[in-house]
Amino acid sequence: MEKKLEQLKETLATLADLGGAVGVLGWDQQTCMPPMAAEARGQQMGTLGRLAHDIATSAELGKLLEELKVHAADLDPDSDDARMIKFAVRDFEQATRIPGDFVVEQAQVIALASQAWSEAKEKSDFAHFQPHLEKIVDLTHRLIGFFPPAEHPYDTLLDFYEPEMKTAEVKSIFNTLRTQQVELIRKIGTKPQVDDSFLHQPFDEKKQWDFGVEVVTKYGYDWQRGRQDKAPHPFTSSFSINDVRITTRINPEFLNTMLFGTMHEAGHALYDLGHAPELERTNLNTGASQAVHESQSRMWENLVGRSLPFWRYFYPRLQEYFPQLTKVGLVDFYRGINKSQPSLIRVEADESTYNLHIMLRLELEIAIIEGKVQVKDLPQAWNQKMEEYLGVTPPDDARGVLQDVHWSWGYFGYFSTYALGNLISAQLWEQIIKDIPDLEDQFSLGRFDSLLAWLRKNIHCHGRKYLPQELVQKVTGSKIDPAAYMRYLNKKYTQIYDL
Amino acid sequence: MEKKLEQLKETLATLADLGGAVGVLGWDQQTCMPPMAAEARGQQMGTLGRLAHDIATSAELGKLLEELKVHAADLDPDSDDARMIKFAVRDFEQATRIPGDFVVEQAQVIALASQAWSEAKEKSDFAHFQPHLEKIVDLTHRLIGFFPPAEHPYDTLLDFYEPEMKTAEVKSIFNTLRTQQVELIRKIGTKPQVDDSFLHQPFDEKKQWDFGVEVVTKYGYDWQRGRQDKAPHPFTSSFSINDVRITTRINPEFLNTMLFGTMHEAGHALYDLGHAPELERTNLNTGASQAVHESQSRMWENLVGRSLPFWRYFYPRLQEYFPQLTKVGLVDFYRGINKSQPSLIRVEADESTYNLHIMLRLELEIAIIEGKVQVKDLPQAWNQKMEEYLGVTPPDDARGVLQDVHWSWGYFGYFSTYALGNLISAQLWEQIIKDIPDLEDQFSLGRFDSLLAWLRKNIHCHGRKYLPQELVQKVTGSKIDPAAYMRYLNKKYTQIYDL
Repeated sequence: MEKKLEQLKETLATLADLGGAVGVLGWDQQTCMPPMAAEARGQQMGTLGRLAHDIATSAELGKLLEELKVHAADLDPDSDDARMIKFAVRDFEQATRIPGDFVVEQAQVIALASQAWSEAKEKSDFAHFQPHLEKIVDLTHRLIGFFPPAEHPYDTLLDFYEPEMKTAEVKSIFNTLRTQQVELIRKIGTKPQVDDSFLHQPFDEKKQWDFGVEVVTKYGYDWQRGRQDKAPHPFTSSFSINDVRITTRINPEFLNTMLFGTMHEAGHALYDLGHAPELERTNLNTGASQAVHESQSRMWENLVGRSLPFWRYFYPRLQEYFPQLTKVGLVDFYRGINKSQPSLIRVEADESTYNLHIMLRLELEIAIIEGKVQVKDLPQAWNQKMEEYLGVTPPDDARGVLQDVHWSWGYFGYFSTYALGNLISAQLWEQIIKDIPDLEDQFSLGRFDSLLAWLRKNIHCHGRKYLPQELVQKVTGSKIDPAAYMRYLNKKYTQIYDL
Repeated sequence: MEKKLEQLKETLATLADLGGAVGVLGWDQQTCMPPMAAEARGQQMGTLGRLAHDIATSAELGKLLEELKVHAADLDPDSDDARMIKFAVRDFEQATRIPGDFVVEQAQVIALASQAWSEAKEKSDFAHFQPHLEKIVDLTHRLIGFFPPAEHPYDTLLDFYEPEMKTAEVKSIFNTLRTQQVELIRKIGTKPQVDDSFLHQPFDEKKQWDFGVEVVTKYGYDWQRGRQDKAPHPFTSSFSINDVRITTRINPEFLNTMLFGTMHEAGHALYDLGHAPELERTNLNTGASQAVHESQSRMWENLVGRSLPFWRYFYPRLQEYFPQLTKVGLVDFYRGINKSQPSLIRVEADESTYNLHIMLRLELEIAIIEGKVQVKDLPQAWNQKMEEYLGVTPPDDARGVLQDVHWSWGYFGYFSTYALGNLISAQLWEQIIKDIPDLEDQFSLGRFDSLLAWLRKNIHCHGRKYLPQELVQKVTGSKIDPAAYMRYLNKKYTQIYDL
């Protein structure tokens, strides 16, 4: 048993190393790589991916896991070893269901589709992307077909990003949320709008960068184990527990882009930097799920970074960087960065409207999988729902159905994790406030270490040891639930808009 | 046959992709990586190296090559396919001779030794490095033992860096060179020294960077297929024919470091950027040997970059960047950057003395392999030879036997390629001047495209298709020979020092 477990750990270490290497190649591709190197980079990443797939689906590993599964019954089910085996079995079963030829075909379709999406978005020309998206939908149907029939075919897709989450659960959560969030927006709409014009003016790029660095340093981001670079679409990349890198982008005429983008990515990074060192080079050295990951990024971006206590400390610093803000008071600044306004673009949406962008995508994805909407009809369906939920209509597809890259990557099943992440962040927050009653006072003094310590202990250190629902239940006493988030939103916006 | 050749090409492509990936990880390690990520990076590179070794030594590949060898007799021996098979056989035979356990042990010894070397150099404490170097020498003896006995045991080591080059050949070349170069230095020593004090003054780092970029852009370095970063020990890295990156370092008080370092690395990069596109993802998409590679870097650094015609064009530009040079005339500048002076440090040596640093190292390496010098006696042996060849004695081991990293990496057999590269560069140059009689006039006008085109056609495009001696013979009509280099040195220094 001991020897077999060692064998498994060696295989997992090899896979972790390959994953880390692919991560470095991907990071380099988006931050450093010369333009003409794209094709070779694709080949290199493809080769590493193929080698990893061969190892992850090998008969040898399958046999090893069969043997370990039996012995695992004797282990403490919450021990690292038991969880390692559990998830190794899960990953093996998932990977072996997908034929190698399909993986290759999918990679080729995606390479062309993401290129076509980029061109289509540039020209706001959905027709250019349509045939590619049709192929991706076809692939997605075939992918579902490799798995045993689920309660709903979309369950199979969700499971890739949010293990064991069911379509029915997400729909039920979103149904509650939708009514309440639409009602909140309606109420806000009856009130005078706040002024955020001071956020739209020239802000020196170097100073923006430096302020962002100051914030995430205070958050506890460890520069000995990370770095920040610029990227057109910011992301966080983890290559090992000691190498978790963030990226940001800077809009020289709008402060929010750098500000909340940097905090968001730092939130992801703090999670990956906080996994227990024992999990390094295992299959557990990663987040519990996309939603749990997003709960961390959204917490540091919104519950911390868009809060009044945070700005009590940081606003004077920001004003030193940008003296043009001297004439804007703290509370006006706080209201400005929290302005609620239905808008076209998901990534620019405020907290009161963000989840509606997600619901729209989830509903369209389910409709496509159920065959109730055809790809060609997506632009119209998109615009209808935008009107229905947010009262705005995209003037073109670039600002409508073409705005997100996800579908071109074949990421059907992903979007809802963004909204679930918001919900989890508020559920955790209610628990944190109970455990650290003076948390907001600490923020006002520029202290975030108690928060980080709490997250490390309750969330980060576990890595992927628990399923997302299991983790949320363990920490908050209930499963993912929209109530806490709605309490948070209602309280915040009642105060800001005097509802 | 066709099918088997395709199979070989697939394997070579996999190995090329793995090599490219390791290259990116190594580049990142030296330019971007956060300090605490070193251990994980070592593991990642080790895992990729092991996977590559497994493929490169697999019985399957061996069988394939056995079959292809037979059929290769029907191919044009100069065709890409024939050469690909020839070198695949060579690499397979070399790789399979070295046991996997040895490779792992070697990697571990080197990891510790290079760390110890770094500390020892810092404190100028040879005793701290000595036990590690003894282990490396022991490993080197064992490495030689895996191969059939050669004329001289050092031949086996040379063969790793300079395929099929023999110790006797190198010794014979160096014997001729030593006498003549020592005599040249003696003659220079009787003449008044040139003034290079103007090179030692503050030079703005950003301007230095920009000037270097301007030079290598004129050389033809393609920024669509490369980039430049800073590194403490500059190097060039090639990940594919469309991704060849250079690095440089800047001394804010001495111009030469950036100037000739940047040109040197660009010379390496132009070689790798010039391989025929058909060779991409094969075993031929690399230089013919270390010496041939060095001939390219030294050519662009010295025969071009330290020439008067080059500076006729570039000196006015340099003076615009650095107005403090306005009072230094062109010829005085040219004499200053070519100052001949026996010195302690190889990488800072001028052209008239550089090769003597190499000969000293070669002789010590051979003496160690022959058992005539013990590791513990190296500092003394080093200092004696420095006195004998260059008339200077290192005041400490940091500036003596500990100055170079190579031995700590186990690179026994490498050093002579630096001097051989110098010789080849001058041999090629005599041929180039014949083929492009107005070459120097072109340089005076800032035109380097004819030179690059000549190198592309005669050297770069072939990649590794020819053995180094074969290539030099093919292009210049003779094997590697010191005469051209001595003609070059004598002419240049006679003019500068009025000998």
